[in-house]
Order: sequence, then structure tokens, then C-alpha cells
Amino acid sequence: MSNKQQNILIIGAGLCGSLLALRLGQRGYNVTVYEMRPDLRTTDISAGRSINLAFSDRGNKAMKLVGIEDKVKALCIPMNGRMIHDKEGNTFLSNYSGRDYEYINSISRGELNGLLLTEAEKHDNVTIHFNKKCNSVDFEKTTATFQDYNSKDEFIEDADCIIATDGAGSALRKSYYLSHKFLFSFSQEYLSHGYKELTFLPKEDGGYKTYKNALHIWPRSSFMLIALPNLDGSFTVTLFLSYSEGEYNFNNLTTPEIVTEFFQKEFPDALEIMPNLVDDFFENPTAALGTVKCSPWHYKGNTLLMGDSAHAIVPFYGQGMNASFEDVVEFDKVLDQNLDNWEATFEAYEKNRKKDTDAIADLAIDNFHEMKGHVANPIFQEKRKIEMALEKEFPSAYSSKYSLVTFNEDIGYREAMLKGRAQDKAILNMLTDNIMSSDDDLKDILEKVNVETEAILEDDRIAGLH
Amino acid sequence: MSNKQQNILIIGAGLCGSLLALRLGQRGYNVTVYEMRPDLRTTDISAGRSINLAFSDRGNKAMKLVGIEDKVKALCIPMNGRMIHDKEGNTFLSNYSGRDYEYINSISRGELNGLLLTEAEKHDNVTIHFNKKCNSVDFEKTTATFQDYNSKDEFIEDADCIIATDGAGSALRKSYYLSHKFLFSFSQEYLSHGYKELTFLPKEDGGYKTYKNALHIWPRSSFMLIALPNLDGSFTVTLFLSYSEGEYNFNNLTTPEIVTEFFQKEFPDALEIMPNLVDDFFENPTAALGTVKCSPWHYKGNTLLMGDSAHAIVPFYGQGMNASFEDVVEFDKVLDQNLDNWEATFEAYEKNRKKDTDAIADLAIDNFHEMKGHVANPIFQEKRKIEMALEKEFPSAYSSKYSLVTFNEDIGYREAMLKGRAQDKAILNMLTDNIMSSDDDLKDILEKVNVETEAILEDDRIAGLH
Repeated sequence: MSNKQQNILIIGAGLCGSLLALRLGQRGYNVTVYEMRPDLRTTDISAGRSINLAFSDRGNKAMKLVGIEDKVKALCIPMNGRMIHDKEGNTFLSNYSGRDYEYINSISRGELNGLLLTEAEKHDNVTIHFNKKCNSVDFEKTTATFQDYNSKDEFIEDADCIIATDGAGSALRKSYYLSHKFLFSFSQEYLSHGYKELTFLPKEDGGYKTYKNALHIWPRSSFMLIALPNLDGSFTVTLFLSYSEGEYNFNNLTTPEIVTEFFQKEFPDALEIMPNLVDDFFENPTAALGTVKCSPWHYKGNTLLMGDSAHAIVPFYGQGMNASFEDVVEFDKVLDQNLDNWEATFEAYEKNRKKDTDAIADLAIDNFHEMKGHVANPIFQEKRKIEMALEKEFPSAYSSKYSLVTFNEDIGYREAMLKGRAQDKAILNMLTDNIMSSDDDLKDILEKVNVETEAILEDDRIAGLH
Repeated sequence: MSNKQQNILIIGAGLCGSLLALRLGQRGYNVTVYEMRPDLRTTDISAGRSINLAFSDRGNKAMKLVGIEDKVKALCIPMNGRMIHDKEGNTFLSNYSGRDYEYINSISRGELNGLLLTEAEKHDNVTIHFNKKCNSVDFEKTTATFQDYNSKDEFIEDADCIIATDGAGSALRKSYYLSHKFLFSFSQEYLSHGYKELTFLPKEDGGYKTYKNALHIWPRSSFMLIALPNLDGSFTVTLFLSYSEGEYNFNNLTTPEIVTEFFQKEFPDALEIMPNLVDDFFENPTAALGTVKCSPWHYKGNTLLMGDSAHAIVPFYGQGMNASFEDVVEFDKVLDQNLDNWEATFEAYEKNRKKDTDAIADLAIDNFHEMKGHVANPIFQEKRKIEMALEKEFPSAYSSKYSLVTFNEDIGYREAMLKGRAQDKAILNMLTDNIMSSDDDLKDILEKVNVETEAILEDDRIAGLH
């Protein structure tokens, strides 16, 4: 799209929408953004819902694209690995990579979103309106209806094209679904588990009550607790637990006594540093964990879904924000192709991108099971040990599935998934069949893993599995 | 549920609803059924939409359960295999099984549905109302709102429980989805292909214009034509074709000339026996092909989805009706357990059943690709040849995936899928790697296939893939 005088309307100024506004502003488009919430830079908005997030290489690639890598870095707390806590309070640090320079970061959603808004607004051709909720989109007319939170007035806006970055509950996606004007494939899948956010408060001197540079996990097989550090010395703690199954679940954790008993039994070392547990537990909401997929993302050249509105995922790979930021990078690449019109642009973008967002959605669900259970399973631990050693010894020749997904931003999620799953299967099977052991020579191990991985991929190709 | 004085309301008197009414009537419940269409035994209803269907062992198991196996047999036309037609009009018969007594049947939807209605109505405790459309279900109050087609009056019915067998567009499922009262996982996935029904008329003497006892296929890789026989000498012919892709598609087949050109080029031997092609093509609708999955199927003990309303699938495994009939068999088994209440009954039924209906949904999509392409692929043909020989030589020791799914009604769809896919992978890989050939001794082949299949299943289990 070489005509830069186009008016683009963006619905939603969350992480994806504000980054998109910034990038399209840089490219010279006239960009208008409507956000339903107040400006988070000047208003304190609701706590208890994903206060911090994991930020890694795919997200950083987008920050490089818009030139704010250094500003974002200042907001980051590196997490080098998973710190696993057992029931006796013993801890064990499992690095995310055998390469020292590969780690993920904890970042404040609010701070990062605020930075993106400020950067976007530096462009005269970008305007952001707050407190304006989108109620519906007429995708045939390329208009959207908004309501002002204060005046309650409804108004209609039109544009050359509308991009909805309005999250998992997207108004545009709902308009696609309810219209029955074209075949719209759609899925929403909930896990049987929900989540609740809690807190480790900072020490009185502002320090951290537990090790700062890790993502802490208390894996308990059918449920888990995790904690990510914040810059102010606190940790945001999240309990993932079934709504209705097991001895303790969200439906039966109804009194301070039973909540305390549950934590005393399962997470004693965490309980020790969270005197505020009961207050947090009953003040903060319990939220659902869902995956949304759909297709098509666009209606002709009029409207497009991007970010969570097109592909909401569960948080267990720490890739939700990174995937949405990568959407903007991929969309930007298609814009570089200068296709004839928005329809060709949207079509090329979805064709290239959807396979990868489908893959990260599936990987995130896999990782739910890995995090709550497998990290404590001996054979998975032995696999992990081998992979760390391979990455350390052969940094340019081997990357685990986690590394392919998280630190290899030039490989798509789908390719990372196929290769990573085949590697996992190769290693687990060779360990089980005693064809290989973690005591073997590392060079032999690498050779065996590569040969077996390629054989698995080839067998699947012949059987037409991918 | 031992209290037989319960009032059960069934929404929809299609194949599943009428069988369910019959079975629950036999068990002594008070059953009331509401159907939106007129009584198909006395009214000629719309043609052009799945006039005949594939009926096989899982469906027959249900007919045995209700004691009407012989009456149904009289409506069946055996189809022993696929008759494949190439572009030059050459044909090749590929049997469905190496065992002579394993075949599928073509059956008239209307005749079978009529039989089930008549059998159900023989029970004084079963009442069926026609021309009453369900508009919505209040699953908290266990009431449903209906509208009479003639008087247009709306009325509300209540019951001890409501079972919705109202098909892919289910009113109850819509009420679940729109209520937001519980977490409802839901997916609708459309294929890029649609379908249109056409006809080979009978010969003037009432005979069949092509071989009667086969399911005819014209596989053309990205599209296909199929034909199933009817008792009156006609065949119902179905074209499966992309809406928008390829040289010819539903969007561009807009004139008699281009439709005739397409058939002349791709299906010349079919065109020869369908002088009525152009009329059928422009009179009959083009319909979409979709898969629906959802969960939960029930709300407490109040309401339950069954049949297509819970799991609509694409037609390529010929299992849509058979799966819905099997639902009734499985539900009947749970009733035999005499659980405490409807909630426990519905929960046990879904827990046992959903894994199998998910599996047949996925298998049906696999078979779409197999039917339009693989049946014409040399390595798939060699696999098929080997499997037919194994089934013939070792009738009790080997069953192909098709046979496990179609003729082994005591194995669940999920188990059939896992074993069948592993067998396919084993054979295709050993053929490609020249570890095995169709000229080998059959006993050696069986041994190799069994060992490799078990190794594949075991590798997947270790890797946590199922």
C-alpha cells in the first residue's frame, strides 16, 4: 500500500494496538485509535489481571523495528530460568537455555503499554482517543460504532480500513461471527483450570523476598503456582487451579481457613512470604483460561483482526504478548511488498501468519501440562539436562524446543513446533529405550539426536501428517 | 435413572431424535418430541440435501438394540467398495475390506427416518409433534420455547429433562453459547469446499445406469464427485468443490456452458449418464461443509446435546448418522448403570463418549484428503493392496483403519483412530524405506506391520502425545 494518505482506524490501544499505531504512524499513514479504557498513563486501572508479562526475543524484534529497544530494556527484569519449588521448600534452578545470553524478562504491562502510547503520540498523524468503547463493526461499510463512556453518546466512525486489536473479546470478531454473511470458522476452548493473581510484597527495604532473576514455579501436577518479579521489589504470583476437580479447587476454596490450609500444605515456603494471601485471594477475581482461533481474519480489504482478537492463547509459553508484537512485524513485512490494495495485503498477511499463531496456541497448551507436571518428572529432567549441555557445548548447532520458540525469532512458531516436538520425542524415546544416556559423550548424543529427529520428521512427512 | 415416570422432552425428530424417542419409549419413559418440519412420511420434503447416507455396523448395532435390524436391512443397498473413475472413464473397484462380509450400505434418509418415527409412535408413552420449531431453551428452568409453523403461536414446554437432537444448528447449543452462564468451549470449522447434490436418473426400465453395488468416486485431487445408489434405480451424486480456488469452482461455475465444460473435461463418463446435469446444478443449493465440537454437552441434569447438535462432522467417512446412532447405544449403556440422577447420567455419558466423537470428526477430515487425492496415489494404493491381502489371509488378526472405524463397532472411534493411524504410518514408511514390499510373504508383512505399529504407539506414549 504505497498511498500513505490512507485513514486507518485501530480499535483498541492495548499492547498490540499501540505498537501497530506507532508503526503505521512511522510509515506515514493517518492513524486514529479508539480505546475503551481510560489512559493508563494517568489513571490507575484494575489490578489482579496480568500485571506483568514475559517479554522475549520475538517481542524485542518488534521493539527494534520501531526503535525503542533501549527504552524497553530499562523496564525489563531478566529471568534466567525456572526456579522450581518442591513441597518441602527446596528449590532448584533450571535455566531456560544453555547459552548465557538467552533469557526471558519480566515486564510491567502498564509501563510497556504507556511507553508505546507515548511513542505513538509523538507522530502528528496518530491520534488516540480513550474511554470510547466499540460496540460493533459494519465490515461491509467499513464503519465502527463507538460509545463514549462519559457522555454515553454513540457515534459512528469510518475509515479506509479498520484493524481490530481489541483483544480476546473483540467486537469485530463478534460482528463476523454473528453476521452469517460468510463462512467464519471459529473456536473458543477453555481449560478446566482458571487463574487468580496474588502478590509477594517487597521487603520493607524495597528488596525482593525471594530470588529476583527467575520465574518461580511450584509444580503440583494437577495445579501450580508461579511468580514473576516486578521492578518495585514485589512479585506477581499466579495460582492456576481447576474450578471443580481435585481436593482443593476454586469452587471449594471459599473461606480464609481453607485457603490458608491449602497453601500451608502445598506451598509452605510461598505462604511464609505472603501474609497478604487471604486478602488478595478474596479481593482478586478468578479468571478463565481460553484459546481463540478463527479464520478468515479479514473481510475483503475493509477490516482485519490482529493480536489477541485473532488468536488469544493461554499464558503458559510466555508468548501471548510476543506473538501479538510479532504480528506487527509480519504485517510490516507485507506492507513492504507494496501490494495493490488492502485486500491483497490482508490476505497475504493471514496466509503467512496464521499457521504460526495456530502453532503457538497449541504449544502454549502443551506447556501447561509440562509446567505443572513434567518439570518434576525424572525422564523430562534428564532430557532437559542433556539439552542444556548440548546448548552449552554446541551453541550454534543445537536449540531445544523452548529455545526455538523463545529465542529464535527468525524461525516461525510452526517450524519451531515441528522441529522441537520431534527433538523431544527423539530424546525421550532414546532415553527410555536405553539407546542413549546423559553420561554419553556429548558429540555422540548430538549426532544421535539429529539423526533420530530427522527420521521422525521424515516418517511424519511420508505418512502425510504435516 | 430407575424412576420411569420421568417426562423427557426431545427437540428434533431427525434420525437421532427419532431413534432416541424409540429407545426411551421402550425403556418406559414418558417421551414428547417436537420437530420443526412436517411429518416426512406424509409430506415430500426438500430434495437436494443428503438424500441417501452410508449405513454401517455402528448404526446397525443401534438397530439391533431397538429390534428393527431386519426392517432396516430391507432398505439397504450394499456397497462392497469404492469404484474409482479416472478421467478417461476407466474404472477400478477397491473393496472396503478383504473380508467378504464387510461392506457398507446406501440407505434413504427419508425411509429410515420414517421407519424410526413409526416404530417410536407404536409406544403409547411416546408422542411426536410436527411443525413446531424450537426457538430457545432456558436450561436453568428446563423449559423450551416453540413456535407452531401454522398458527405462529409461541408456547413453552417443561420437562424433567430436555435432550436436544436438533442438528448442527441446534437451538440448545446456541442457548449455551449465548448465555455466558458457564464456560462453554465451542468450535465451528468450515472446509474451503462446499457440496452440491446431483442425480443419475434410473434407466427407462428402472435399472441402474452404472454399477449398483459400489460407492462411485471420481477423485481429482483438489475436488471430487461421488455417487451412491438408491432403491429406485437412481444415484444421488455429490460434487465436492472449492468455493473460490482452482480453475473451476462454485463461484465461477455460473453458466450452463461452463458447468458442462467442467464435467466434460473432468467427469466425461458421468456426464454421459446425466443429461439432467444443468437443471440439477442450478436448481439445487450449494451447501457448506463444517465440523462442530463443543463441551460441556449438558447443563447439570437439565439439558443434554446429542447427535449432530453436539458433534456435527463432515461426510467423508460415511459415519455421521452411524455416530449419532451410536450415541443412543452409549447413552443406553449409561442408563443401564442406574446412576442417581440425570446430572450423573449426562456427565458419565459425555465423559465416555466425547473422546470418540472428537476422533470421528478428525478422521472424517482426514478422509476428505484421502478420498479426493490419496486413493489415486501409487504408494497409498500399494498400502491398500497389502491391507486387503492381510484382511483376506488373516481375517481375525488384521483390520485396516477403515475397517476398525467402519466394521468394528465394539472398538471406540478414538482407539480405532490411534491404532489405524499408527498402522498407516508403519506401512507407508516401510514401503518408502524399502523395508517391505507387497510381493513379500504375507506372514512376514503382518509380523513387520504389527511390530512397527506397536513401536509407533509406544514412542507416542513416551513422548506424551496421547
